[in-house]
Amino acid sequence: MALHEDQIQVTEVEKAMETASTSEKKTISTILIIIAMQTEALPVVNRFHLSEDPDDVFPKGVPWVRYHGIYKDLHINLIWPGKDSLLGVDNVGTVSASLVTYASVLALKPDLIINAGTAGGFKAKGACIGDAFLASDVAFHDRRIPIPVFDLYGIGARKVFCPSNMLKELNLKVGKLSTGDSLDMSPHDEASILANDTSIKDMEGAAVAYVADLLSVPAIFIKAVTDVVDGDKPTAEEFLQNLVTVTAALDHAIVQVVDFINGKCLSEL
Amino acid sequence: MALHEDQIQVTEVEKAMETASTSEKKTISTILIIIAMQTEALPVVNRFHLSEDPDDVFPKGVPWVRYHGIYKDLHINLIWPGKDSLLGVDNVGTVSASLVTYASVLALKPDLIINAGTAGGFKAKGACIGDAFLASDVAFHDRRIPIPVFDLYGIGARKVFCPSNMLKELNLKVGKLSTGDSLDMSPHDEASILANDTSIKDMEGAAVAYVADLLSVPAIFIKAVTDVVDGDKPTAEEFLQNLVTVTAALDHAIVQVVDFINGKCLSEL
Repeated sequence: MALHEDQIQVTEVEKAMETASTSEKKTISTILIIIAMQTEALPVVNRFHLSEDPDDVFPKGVPWVRYHGIYKDLHINLIWPGKDSLLGVDNVGTVSASLVTYASVLALKPDLIINAGTAGGFKAKGACIGDAFLASDVAFHDRRIPIPVFDLYGIGARKVFCPSNMLKELNLKVGKLSTGDSLDMSPHDEASILANDTSIKDMEGAAVAYVADLLSVPAIFIKAVTDVVDGDKPTAEEFLQNLVTVTAALDHAIVQVVDFINGKCLSEL
Repeated sequence: MALHEDQIQVTEVEKAMETASTSEKKTISTILIIIAMQTEALPVVNRFHLSEDPDDVFPKGVPWVRYHGIYKDLHINLIWPGKDSLLGVDNVGTVSASLVTYASVLALKPDLIINAGTAGGFKAKGACIGDAFLASDVAFHDRRIPIPVFDLYGIGARKVFCPSNMLKELNLKVGKLSTGDSLDMSPHDEASILANDTSIKDMEGAAVAYVADLLSVPAIFIKAVTDVVDGDKPTAEEFLQNLVTVTAALDHAIVQVVDFINGKCLSEL
């Protein structure tokens, strides 16, 4: 009985490895770009000549918007979580990010997820305004559960797919990304951010990574720095001041990344 | 053209009101109970003789567990988000709660959602250990976005369906629920919790309410108090000490609520 169970497990592991290896060798065909803010999304929509999808890949009532099109050999889907129906602001943060990632992966079956957006950067880790970073790891900094093991679950640290050839070829910085639902940084958040060895701080990344892992889709994280968190200026002010100009840097980085992906399989990235 | 658009809008509002009114008069048939922790869920599973669903209503790879069965005139579905595959602890918090709410509503089309669980209570608002509360309002206390309008989006305050006849008949307290992804309470969280006029503090409610609203399903929130947040004892210690005994109070409250719902339509609750 025990032997039989072991055999089943071995076979399943072998099958999973085979599937993983097959998908790593398949040329990437469909990519899913998730961008939380309209200001960040529209330059990318225009750059790739994507059009808004009038069909309902999402259920009635949700504000999520899908833009899609063909660029070179790639089917590009860009999902923007839309605006809050009452307040009219972008649906930023981890709840919307996890929902759109889940719904989009099920509907569109992408080979690769790209979560792109602006972020705060830490000058102590070499971040400057306008830098584009690729994340090597993600974690949360505002989920404190001081019970053994639950504490680790709350932090939710995980390595993410960090394409080594892409890093070498493109002029991107690399660092750890920490995610929380606040734009500011409280002393408690700061302690967690330092413990997470963070270079960049955003409001969606770790949630996208969590769902991508659940559904076994590789995800990369491109974040352009709008504000220096450990600098002198208040984050909200600096964020708003730099949002539009830094989205140009973000757009440029996304195009570089998509051009690099085109025609390659996962193991070549 | 403007007149035509107005006419369409009026027709759509009329249609929506008609649908809402029809569903309010329909006897409740399917309920969806969402409970984040196994310790909280199992007494309810046993009480209603629910069985685990071997079929896949959820996609492959997700750890979410569905228990279901018939109780009196009701189809009961209880969804527990399961355990983290690496760490083995319950998938608590807003990301998992929003995902299971979304996936369960789409798969099971419930007439009513009940989000039940343990919570911290505020003695300043009359909460004692073991009390069962019904939420009148929900909000988040750890999503600070200090930009006009985005600040309101972060707080995400909303009135929830708070059944007045149920409140009168059953011995439940009523109060505002505030949600965050930490078990502890930082000074920043505390300021938001006070601003939210909070009686009870949990880690899922406002996320469940957000998704329920997106998908237009009424949701009620039953929370039993495991720890007094504004008391003398550390939350984590008091929470663990009282978790098992307070789940008995929670179980009792859920049975009362389900018995009250049985045979009624929404407008009678």
